[in-house]
Amino acid sequence: MIPFKTIITYDKTQSIPVYIQISNQIIQLIKRGILSPETKLPSSRALAAMLNIHRKTVISVYEELLSQGWIEIIPYTGTFVSGSLPIVKKQTLNPTDSALLEKNKAGFSYIKSNLNYVDIINDDSKLFIDDGLPDNRLSMVNEIATAYRSIVKRKKHHILGYDSIYGNLRLRETLVQYLNQTRGLSIQKDQLLTTRGSQMGIYLATKIIGIKNGTFVVGAVNYKSVVDTFNEASASVSIINVDKEGLVTNEIELLCKQKKVAAIYVTSHHNHPTTVALSAQRRMHLLELARQYRFAVIEDDYDYDFHYDNAPILPLASNDTNGNVIYIGSLTKTVAPAIRVGYLVAPKDFIFEAAQQRKFIDRQGDTLLELAIAQIIDEGSLQRHCKKVLKIYKRRRDLLCSLLKKELNDYLSFDVPDGGMAIWVRLNKKYNWDVIRNAAANQKLILNDYRLYDYGATNHNAIRMGFASLNETEIVKTVSIIKSILLDTYEEVQHH
Amino acid sequence: MIPFKTIITYDKTQSIPVYIQISNQIIQLIKRGILSPETKLPSSRALAAMLNIHRKTVISVYEELLSQGWIEIIPYTGTFVSGSLPIVKKQTLNPTDSALLEKNKAGFSYIKSNLNYVDIINDDSKLFIDDGLPDNRLSMVNEIATAYRSIVKRKKHHILGYDSIYGNLRLRETLVQYLNQTRGLSIQKDQLLTTRGSQMGIYLATKIIGIKNGTFVVGAVNYKSVVDTFNEASASVSIINVDKEGLVTNEIELLCKQKKVAAIYVTSHHNHPTTVALSAQRRMHLLELARQYRFAVIEDDYDYDFHYDNAPILPLASNDTNGNVIYIGSLTKTVAPAIRVGYLVAPKDFIFEAAQQRKFIDRQGDTLLELAIAQIIDEGSLQRHCKKVLKIYKRRRDLLCSLLKKELNDYLSFDVPDGGMAIWVRLNKKYNWDVIRNAAANQKLILNDYRLYDYGATNHNAIRMGFASLNETEIVKTVSIIKSILLDTYEEVQHH
Repeated sequence: MIPFKTIITYDKTQSIPVYIQISNQIIQLIKRGILSPETKLPSSRALAAMLNIHRKTVISVYEELLSQGWIEIIPYTGTFVSGSLPIVKKQTLNPTDSALLEKNKAGFSYIKSNLNYVDIINDDSKLFIDDGLPDNRLSMVNEIATAYRSIVKRKKHHILGYDSIYGNLRLRETLVQYLNQTRGLSIQKDQLLTTRGSQMGIYLATKIIGIKNGTFVVGAVNYKSVVDTFNEASASVSIINVDKEGLVTNEIELLCKQKKVAAIYVTSHHNHPTTVALSAQRRMHLLELARQYRFAVIEDDYDYDFHYDNAPILPLASNDTNGNVIYIGSLTKTVAPAIRVGYLVAPKDFIFEAAQQRKFIDRQGDTLLELAIAQIIDEGSLQRHCKKVLKIYKRRRDLLCSLLKKELNDYLSFDVPDGGMAIWVRLNKKYNWDVIRNAAANQKLILNDYRLYDYGATNHNAIRMGFASLNETEIVKTVSIIKSILLDTYEEVQHH
Repeated sequence: MIPFKTIITYDKTQSIPVYIQISNQIIQLIKRGILSPETKLPSSRALAAMLNIHRKTVISVYEELLSQGWIEIIPYTGTFVSGSLPIVKKQTLNPTDSALLEKNKAGFSYIKSNLNYVDIINDDSKLFIDDGLPDNRLSMVNEIATAYRSIVKRKKHHILGYDSIYGNLRLRETLVQYLNQTRGLSIQKDQLLTTRGSQMGIYLATKIIGIKNGTFVVGAVNYKSVVDTFNEASASVSIINVDKEGLVTNEIELLCKQKKVAAIYVTSHHNHPTTVALSAQRRMHLLELARQYRFAVIEDDYDYDFHYDNAPILPLASNDTNGNVIYIGSLTKTVAPAIRVGYLVAPKDFIFEAAQQRKFIDRQGDTLLELAIAQIIDEGSLQRHCKKVLKIYKRRRDLLCSLLKKELNDYLSFDVPDGGMAIWVRLNKKYNWDVIRNAAANQKLILNDYRLYDYGATNHNAIRMGFASLNETEIVKTVSIIKSILLDTYEEVQHH
């Protein structure tokens, strides 16, 4: 006889009825082979006494088990574990501990990646020098919540059902108009797909271009996620140099003569990470090469909206008459990284394929959020917000640049970026970012790793320092900590 | 001389400054080869006169073009298109028309799918009999908008930055507790990843299990999206029969003896499409086979929360001590299809891999929405909502069943489903759903295609009729239309 009294527990304060709690435990006993098929169960009266519950509850338990097929009731004979169940090896009586242990490892083989990922840490006590992110303290998330609410209040119930795999139609129409006006594009709505952000755009473009169609070209210093995505897709990746005018397009031409190029990834407005703009001459050269050698240009225009000194340079996509440019953007930088809405612009037939693929990974976007974004663009709130923060970010850029120049000129160099949210700070070769980074971490200042982005072994000895997310106090503090570390570490040595 | 006056247009009422409008048009002329390198441009005075604008505006135009590298100014000589730009073939003067035409086709080769997709249509004038979706008129989207707003108001700015690739921590903790309480799981937070919905869970599971690890098993009638996903991944797909107890597990056993099985897809609670529950005996058999042959069980528990007559049957995942079950669920059915939040539950090492892959397609979830969902679960709103709609859906199920029985018993058969949101309606062999469907469409009643889900060529002659989204009037109308069509089409023939 199974010691029901010891094994079965229940808690009347739980939201799950007691009879369900008990049924589920009996099912577990059956599944684990502790109660084997054809075992006779106690009468309802006996079990009620054992468990100190009302007999009616036990009757409910047995009814539940019967309806689910775990037991059978033979009139005038008794209640039995169903004889048609398979006999299983008896398992431990205390499943929880071992189950948890076991569950750390899958009981089947699968493909393991060789990726290491350190999860994001949000620690308010530390000052993070990011890669070039907006200041969330200035974000327009209030406007989004208001738009969200006003859309819900309109009670158009059909917006709560499944939506188009191309993205919500109203947002697509809004984005088409917005991009045509601000980026000099001349697209129609079937040339645009909404995404969750740039990363999804890069994934979809890689998938559809296809690794069999040739090599994927990136800069010797390049945005990290995109190289990771190409590698993960098992694409052949070719590396070309980046100089003061951006990607060296002559090297692309040489490469095209050697092998089939499928695509080139370019951040033409502000090179990521070096912040330089692709020169006019190279823009034309790149488009001409794309036409001639029939490759795709994946143009990631990640911070078009942030340009300080002259008007932003129109994207390559604005001048692509041959259907070579796949244009990727997102609202991550203008709204907030947590708000996941982006877009993919390409020739109509490519967008059709992208929508098919999007269906497999995600089906569709979040309709309510997409409608809220459309509303803040249509109302002009997004544009007003951009104008407002642009002034603030320009001041921050100028402050960080002037302090770096004034305080750290002997140690490092940089070019004032025309736009974007970060400065590419190159440390003189005799100094080591690791030393500064470790010492800074002790003072709760978290700097980037200089090894990032270096796919061509350029030993650039540079980091991106995001200025947009730092207020003036934080900028002053950052430079001051770095300076004190440099003085402490290096000057002492020199004086000895 | 280029006819600047004819080609260049501007609109002072636009938000883009006139000098930028003109600069961009000159850049286009250069890029298209209409203004070739070293071409002399009119003096600022001359161009101002031609375009009827202030000379200062033209100076701004030339400054802009100079800063972007498109032109060079040679003192005492004039303004020229930059000589370092490459010479390109002269293109049409009217770029818009041809550009739009060209942009329909990509100018590079890429992998084309063979997919055909009809985009979703939301047409309020029609009555759609869906596959089993909730009634959006009853949705709790107001509560979500309120939660969203309250989260924004708390002004915790760090929630607007990038979040974990596993999903927001608070939502993960909430879901772990919720699933452990309601589904009899005993998981910890590193065994759960948030997704955008079931589809993303299915994609990630397929990707990580890997098509090289064996065949993917589905029922002869099976949920369509999952078979599409397996096929898209180029997986080998094996088909086994489905009967009144669900998947025929003996056939899985036979299959395992013949070839390596990587995974089996199962909707154990209510088989999709037939709505039957996997019997107790087969549940045990399936888990035992998974342990023995080391395959993954992808358990898609798409409508666990909707069970009417007895308590819901606990998922296979609640009894998996060997780490074989990958458990997929979403809030699509409880909240609304447009609200995209779901989860993937699996052994810890599998979840680690899933998070890595999620990063490539989507990076992370929408933090604000994830926090809003966590809040409505923690407050108990979701649970109260489920209880409320469950009663309504049960009445709708009972009404549709009783009307089908009373009015259409001669034409079709069905089993009353214990749960879920749809009835699997089998038309007698001598009648044809196509005839009914076409006639119904004329009366703005849109029925499903009976060819759906039929992967084993079973000729099931059945459709799913979702009852949850229909109110009583709509249910009555639906049955009445179908009945009149059947009478008109078939009885007349018989009487002749």
